Amino acid sequence: MPQKLERSIAHLFCDASLLQTALTHRSHSSPHNERLEYLGDAALNAVVARLLFERFPELPEGDLSRLRANLVRQDSLHRLAEQLMLGQFLRLGEGELKSGGATRPSILADALEALFGAIWLDAGFDAVSAVIARLYDPLIQAINPAKPMKDAKTRLQELLQGKRLPLPKYALTATEGEAHAQKFRIACVIEKLDICTEGLGASRRAAEQMAAERALEIMEKS
Amino acid sequence: MPQKLERSIAHLFCDASLLQTALTHRSHSSPHNERLEYLGDAALNAVVARLLFERFPELPEGDLSRLRANLVRQDSLHRLAEQLMLGQFLRLGEGELKSGGATRPSILADALEALFGAIWLDAGFDAVSAVIARLYDPLIQAINPAKPMKDAKTRLQELLQGKRLPLPKYALTATEGEAHAQKFRIACVIEKLDICTEGLGASRRAAEQMAAERALEIMEKS
Repeated sequence: MPQKLERSIAHLFCDASLLQTALTHRSHSSPHNERLEYLGDAALNAVVARLLFERFPELPEGDLSRLRANLVRQDSLHRLAEQLMLGQFLRLGEGELKSGGATRPSILADALEALFGAIWLDAGFDAVSAVIARLYDPLIQAINPAKPMKDAKTRLQELLQGKRLPLPKYALTATEGEAHAQKFRIACVIEKLDICTEGLGASRRAAEQMAAERALEIMEKS
Repeated sequence: MPQKLERSIAHLFCDASLLQTALTHRSHSSPHNERLEYLGDAALNAVVARLLFERFPELPEGDLSRLRANLVRQDSLHRLAEQLMLGQFLRLGEGELKSGGATRPSILADALEALFGAIWLDAGFDAVSAVIARLYDPLIQAINPAKPMKDAKTRLQELLQGKRLPLPKYALTATEGEAHAQKFRIACVIEKLDICTEGLGASRRAAEQMAAERALEIMEKS
């Protein structure tokens, strides 16, 4: 079975045990894929950073970072994992299997990162770089840097809906400055996740976006 | 002059203009080092991730991530930049120069990351990997994973003191749950930076640590 996966990523493992570990969820057995996921996440960030650097020679650092965050976040990885039909190759514990773990976005995204980590160990950075470049090429070609990505509030809302969590609450906590140069301070609270961030801006909207962006950062890191 | 730097990092640039760009702060001229810093940050994360992965084959992913965050954060980079006497090679605008930019931790840390980015472009990932491994080897050898790192509140306090900013304020915002299983909700507020994070824990101390950890994450990302 995993040979099919090796064909679709165009990498043949020298050490098949690395592939097996990458596909093993912690609910199944040890060694499982969490350490490889940590490694693969780092490789992915570096490779995508460089792909964007080369594709957009004029773009400043901040834009490159935002584009990258967009490409490496869970739902992008999840879609790529689905393309590779990664779910059918996973080794999951019985409980996870029954509760639909093989289609859970976080499990699929993590396994794909673990696969990247395994390739790095198996055949070096250039090898994992080539695999990631092939997978990401259509996504990177499709980027129009002039067109803004979905704004932070929308992305936060979609992320929470995907997790079946209630929407965040935004609350004005202060206004500052003189009337002609007022600044708004807005809190974004996601109670279920114990997240409380703050944004400051020249408009309520701008302050909300900043607060949402910070909440997204916390969610993506955890 | 920069030949001295090339000797101390043991990398001779094929393309000297990359080295020059890495050493050019945006206050001096364009092209400056911000795009290279973005690239070098990604390389650094990946290389340190792998060095730790190999050095600590038994450590779970979460511990590896924490160790890495510790090694790649600004003050570690700043210390390495000082070892390399990077300040004397920087090209700064007049204003920055006069106000002591050449010794500012953020400028030095960013320039070191830019240098890593430049080496990656100049000679490939294995080359930058070797340079980073040499610089970080003593730090990684010195890690005792059994010994906890400084706690988050201490690190946050030190980081703010380094920036001459007032200390964060911690405030109990709620207690939850029955008396025998009470949870504390603590906010950590850094007014000057518009940061407001929250932690939840079985003790005030635990909740404060969580809130401080999140504030550190925001500061390290910004």
